[in-house]
Amino acid sequence: MRLTVVDAPDQPTPSDELAELYRGFEQELLVPLWTEIGDLMPPHPRSKAVPHLWRWAGLLELAGRAGHLVPVGRGGERRAIALANPSLGGRPFATPTLWAAIQYLMPGEDAPEHRHTQHAFRFVVEGEGVWTVVGQDPVPMGRGDFLPQGGWNWHAHHNAADRPMAWIDGLDIPFQYLTESQFFEFGRDAISDAERITPDRSRSERLWGHPGLRPVSAPAAQTGSPLLRYAWADTDRALTDQLELADEGYPGVLEPGHAAVRYTNPTTAGDVLPTIRAEMHRIRSGAETAPSRQTGSAVYQVFDGSGRVTVGDRSWSVTRGDLFVVPSWVPFSARSEASASDSDSGALDLFTFNDAPIFEALRLDRSSVEGKDA
Amino acid sequence: MRLTVVDAPDQPTPSDELAELYRGFEQELLVPLWTEIGDLMPPHPRSKAVPHLWRWAGLLELAGRAGHLVPVGRGGERRAIALANPSLGGRPFATPTLWAAIQYLMPGEDAPEHRHTQHAFRFVVEGEGVWTVVGQDPVPMGRGDFLPQGGWNWHAHHNAADRPMAWIDGLDIPFQYLTESQFFEFGRDAISDAERITPDRSRSERLWGHPGLRPVSAPAAQTGSPLLRYAWADTDRALTDQLELADEGYPGVLEPGHAAVRYTNPTTAGDVLPTIRAEMHRIRSGAETAPSRQTGSAVYQVFDGSGRVTVGDRSWSVTRGDLFVVPSWVPFSARSEASASDSDSGALDLFTFNDAPIFEALRLDRSSVEGKDA
Amino acid sequence: MRLTVVDAPDQPTPSDELAELYRGFEQELLVPLWTEIGDLMPPHPRSKAVPHLWRWAGLLELAGRAGHLVPVGRGGERRAIALANPSLGGRPFATPTLWAAIQYLMPGEDAPEHRHTQHAFRFVVEGEGVWTVVGQDPVPMGRGDFLPQGGWNWHAHHNAADRPMAWIDGLDIPFQYLTESQFFEFGRDAISDAERITPDRSRSERLWGHPGLRPVSAPAAQTGSPLLRYAWADTDRALTDQLELADEGYPGVLEPGHAAVRYTNPTTAGDVLPTIRAEMHRIRSGAETAPSRQTGSAVYQVFDGSGRVTVGDRSWSVTRGDLFVVPSWVPFSARSEASASDSDSGALDLFTFNDAPIFEALRLDRSSVEGKDA
Amino acid sequence: MRLTVVDAPDQPTPSDELAELYRGFEQELLVPLWTEIGDLMPPHPRSKAVPHLWRWAGLLELAGRAGHLVPVGRGGERRAIALANPSLGGRPFATPTLWAAIQYLMPGEDAPEHRHTQHAFRFVVEGEGVWTVVGQDPVPMGRGDFLPQGGWNWHAHHNAADRPMAWIDGLDIPFQYLTESQFFEFGRDAISDAERITPDRSRSERLWGHPGLRPVSAPAAQTGSPLLRYAWADTDRALTDQLELADEGYPGVLEPGHAAVRYTNPTTAGDVLPTIRAEMHRIRSGAETAPSRQTGSAVYQVFDGSGRVTVGDRSWSVTRGDLFVVPSWVPFSARSEASASDSDSGALDLFTFNDAPIFEALRLDRSSVEGKDA
Repeated sequence: MRLTVVDAPDQPTPSDELAELYRGFEQELLVPLWTEIGDLMPPHPRSKAVPHLWRWAGLLELAGRAGHLVPVGRGGERRAIALANPSLGGRPFATPTLWAAIQYLMPGEDAPEHRHTQHAFRFVVEGEGVWTVVGQDPVPMGRGDFLPQGGWNWHAHHNAADRPMAWIDGLDIPFQYLTESQFFEFGRDAISDAERITPDRSRSERLWGHPGLRPVSAPAAQTGSPLLRYAWADTDRALTDQLELADEGYPGVLEPGHAAVRYTNPTTAGDVLPTIRAEMHRIRSGAETAPSRQTGSAVYQVFDGSGRVTVGDRSWSVTRGDLFVVPSWVPFSARSEASASDSDSGALDLFTFNDAPIFEALRLDRSSVEGKDA
Repeated sequence: MRLTVVDAPDQPTPSDELAELYRGFEQELLVPLWTEIGDLMPPHPRSKAVPHLWRWAGLLELAGRAGHLVPVGRGGERRAIALANPSLGGRPFATPTLWAAIQYLMPGEDAPEHRHTQHAFRFVVEGEGVWTVVGQDPVPMGRGDFLPQGGWNWHAHHNAADRPMAWIDGLDIPFQYLTESQFFEFGRDAISDAERITPDRSRSERLWGHPGLRPVSAPAAQTGSPLLRYAWADTDRALTDQLELADEGYPGVLEPGHAAVRYTNPTTAGDVLPTIRAEMHRIRSGAETAPSRQTGSAVYQVFDGSGRVTVGDRSWSVTRGDLFVVPSWVPFSARSEASASDSDSGALDLFTFNDAPIFEALRLDRSSVEGKDA
Repeated sequence: MRLTVVDAPDQPTPSDELAELYRGFEQELLVPLWTEIGDLMPPHPRSKAVPHLWRWAGLLELAGRAGHLVPVGRGGERRAIALANPSLGGRPFATPTLWAAIQYLMPGEDAPEHRHTQHAFRFVVEGEGVWTVVGQDPVPMGRGDFLPQGGWNWHAHHNAADRPMAWIDGLDIPFQYLTESQFFEFGRDAISDAERITPDRSRSERLWGHPGLRPVSAPAAQTGSPLLRYAWADTDRALTDQLELADEGYPGVLEPGHAAVRYTNPTTAGDVLPTIRAEMHRIRSGAETAPSRQTGSAVYQVFDGSGRVTVGDRSWSVTRGDLFVVPSWVPFSARSEASASDSDSGALDLFTFNDAPIFEALRLDRSSVEGKDA
Repeated sequence: MRLTVVDAPDQPTPSDELAELYRGFEQELLVPLWTEIGDLMPPHPRSKAVPHLWRWAGLLELAGRAGHLVPVGRGGERRAIALANPSLGGRPFATPTLWAAIQYLMPGEDAPEHRHTQHAFRFVVEGEGVWTVVGQDPVPMGRGDFLPQGGWNWHAHHNAADRPMAWIDGLDIPFQYLTESQFFEFGRDAISDAERITPDRSRSERLWGHPGLRPVSAPAAQTGSPLLRYAWADTDRALTDQLELADEGYPGVLEPGHAAVRYTNPTTAGDVLPTIRAEMHRIRSGAETAPSRQTGSAVYQVFDGSGRVTVGDRSWSVTRGDLFVVPSWVPFSARSEASASDSDSGALDLFTFNDAPIFEALRLDRSSVEGKDA
């Protein structure tokens, strides 16, 4: 261990005695605050992570090659390829707390059953044909579907189609890695024929997918949503409704031209997962969001449309499938810019997930919109 | 004031001194515990209310006559006719805490705007054409629809149809009357033309009626559900799903042949109103529920089908629209008995509301199913 | 049952048909809203209860006579004599929700063990020598001590002194009576010799009576405080501290010259009982509180000093031990008026309990201070 | 960035194509799960941190030298010297989430005012004479006192004595550093004369230091305890009471011979700080605690007595002031071994703080005692 002044302007006058003292600190495994305070206690979060963009086309091409070269099975568990923020030391951390990966399953393939304390979800930007089997309940995955999966639930995947399928996984792997709270168990090596069915709705949706209604037989609050699929048709309609209400002069949208829904746990009305917030935003063609920032980090994926996003001092034109990260306290805004190839609406649909529930639970959340602290 | 021994076996030996003492109590406005303890502190709740049944046909006929004789307007406010439990002194209290009334509106009629702290809902067993305007949001009312309305929201009704319409109102009027917490304000005498529209969905449903999704723009927890209509199609499908899941061997129903959903506030995941729980139960043809009882009272209305219900030592054959009350700690069970005139399914659909949220909030809830305390 | 117009100015035009309709209502056990709305849904709470004062001297004299004439034993359970609000029909209800009684135990007497769901407390305005045995833990009772006792705890009393002792009991008996949620069980007929000890501190105080500290071994939240005695020395010091802080220019008092502490459950930080709030107020000599009112009712007892209290349109000079009630939404204020016989400080100490936790749990609480709604 | 297999036994067959694929991953800033899963998702937490012990004598000697060589002032802010876990890369992190430092103030010295979102506390193992001024309230610091300080409160220190004083600071600096939620502001450069007073009790204690009582004037729940000092006399008495109760045959201790109290926030009854739990444990002479482990990490300081502590495969004899860390999921036990130089009681008093509130808030807490999962 070598003591170095990380970030602190006012330091004691160098002297032999001071050098001797610092050697004593090193021998005794001690580090003074005054040499590191600027790094440890900055005036506001200065993220180690940087804004970065991953193009969907590139991810998909590499994942497709992995489909041919890398088997899926016990041990490796999943053909998942994670975003590694350029400034986080090559670790598979999209941000200091969040994992985001593309997962890829070949026709007829299964991913074996396991469970872990890491909270997870799947989100599908394109494709169909895979069912995620959660607690023996096969859950369909199609474009726009969001599948949350609270920690410690058994789960496997199987591709029932004749084509490969890709989707993104979001988890709190970095957070649990850093705080050292993670457990993992292998499940059965193969799912049963009964779980290999391909229903249109999971059993969880049949129990929990009715607005404002809950089964009287169910226990009260549950950690992680018991609703295992938030189907795109519902999300799409909710966003459309918000924009139409705004057109009629009524409240609902987040700001002009900007609709947004949050996925919630129907047993708590809170976030869908204890450590992860997930939302879908729709920015109308030509609209732009106000720059805002918050403690904690986020990952975005373009679900539909095209536009331009600005993250701190970076700015990119983005289109379907592109993924990018917004580090803590870095301002973010997005503008919808319909292109000729976009769908009729011309809106920019952004799926996003972040770690806000951690900060809210611990009373560490802060945010500001256009410089106005909240 | 005259002191009398209400219910207590062991009394002090009568004497002149005792009589003198009791006269002292009366003069000083005092009552000893020992003369009343059996009434005040019984081994378990012994309700002042009794089980009672009101036939829908009779209610509807009287309400129709009131439609011609009694105007709706400022002062009387509503053409509502309340169930008066036979043993509650002629007061319009279905149970000691709950109000249940039939409300009736003639074609083209309006009920004027007001607001009150009493929590309320409407439930429609038949008919259509009336919109309840809550906070200037017109909410349609059709068969099977449930419309909660948290306290202190402005609301009016207007009948846009060419026929009269009836529905039931449930409120916590007796509870707030007994605890003396009620406020009331008159609103505008007439709703505006803009509120006289007759949309298929209220604005509240467009914002809040999407399963598991909430508008990001909305405030967090709200007292009383912001979802102002729970449409029958959703409720029906949820019940059907539960019974089908049971047929396939999966959990979901409350007991064999008995599906049940609870209306919830999507901002809290708890009961739809702070003082009132509301549920829809479906009992399959031939099925019977286990006798159960709980602290607190309930009102039931047959929504569909026919059957036999047993409340303590009373038992009735019931059919669509019939209303009955279950007093505190009196056992209740229901059996579905399809008749020739019933709908195809033959199931008995029971709408019910009760005061359980009061007892749960105050840790006074108890229940037992078939003699098993919980 | 005879239908009468209780309180409503605008009534339908009398006619034979209307009379016939009303007879129909009566026969069918129905009551229209329009004849009762003024009573049921007033603009603000209009309590059935009235302000009233009971003099301690009178209570004590009658209780003492009861000590000689009325045995304490199984059946009658307690020699408790309750305040009966003059306008509540002769029932032993101080207010519509609260019970307040003087209890009296002769030297060497025991009150037998029982338990009930009614939440209770004891407060001692004078005397000593009785221990309340809660769950076999003997809790001393002395002047100024407050002893809460959450529902469904076994408890008995024994007088270990050679003199009678009196204190007041507060319970939610009327509330549980009206809502019909009460259970009751007899316990052992006699407490054991081991419970007949007379320690200075109960075991509950040894576990829970340390500021800001909790036993790690204890379960988390508990219904009803596990701290069974709030000793006067602590309460007195807290009030003194508040007034001294105010003298030094720091916050703490409720208003100038008016200190107040609330008894709390150390496992929830909320009210000491689920349905009852209890507080001690100290009003400095010459100070006067701002008139305030709230939904829900309160009982006050003068603990020390003298003064003048105003409840709505009633006003009384009060002194040690006097009890009075403040009905829902009736303004209350107090002025300290030291008399020659008062203790050195000259302050007016008022103990009070009310039903605010019920209204807060159900979001029905409202209050105003000097006409300013809150 | 170079992709390496961190910890995963089953890897795809090496080939040129696989190597090419891996180069593609590196270029695109991607990392596959299958090369890292063993590290990222272990069967149970495998802490990066190791058990380690720091001797108080050594810490104090170095801090004393720093007292002469290192000024305290704006910029460096505090003469604080932090424990750096040997396997956490030389960063001043006692554990992955917790900061523990010795702070040292010379006679007459001030540490300037600042505030930060990091939650903090001070604990005093020996010495006196320093006051921590929190929000302009001077709080005395003496042996055994615990001073919590929720995030974002202004605070400074001043040494009013003629001798140096040392104490330990505990904060969640590493947690907020890793999750990037920290804010910091400089306050006034000097505290006023009015804050330089040296009262025996802080104003916070006068308001909040009364068992079970809260000022009615205070807001409800507060983030971080408003009680700014938990005086040793109270803590000591609480521990003594628990052991005496056990001697009399009553519950209270955590296990035989092992008493423990937790510092709580009197406005929530929960942990004293949102991210930090703090407790004092007393192990009777000759007693030994059952080995237990939990998710999350802890720091211990010996407050009094001597003993032997075992952390995973490390074991040390410890005495007053010694500090050691227990990493996540590493078993810990302690045995009290009185030595000739110890105080009369011979008990081992251990102060400890940990990050359990983080895991409980996020439903990630797990613990086991002697191999029994909970």
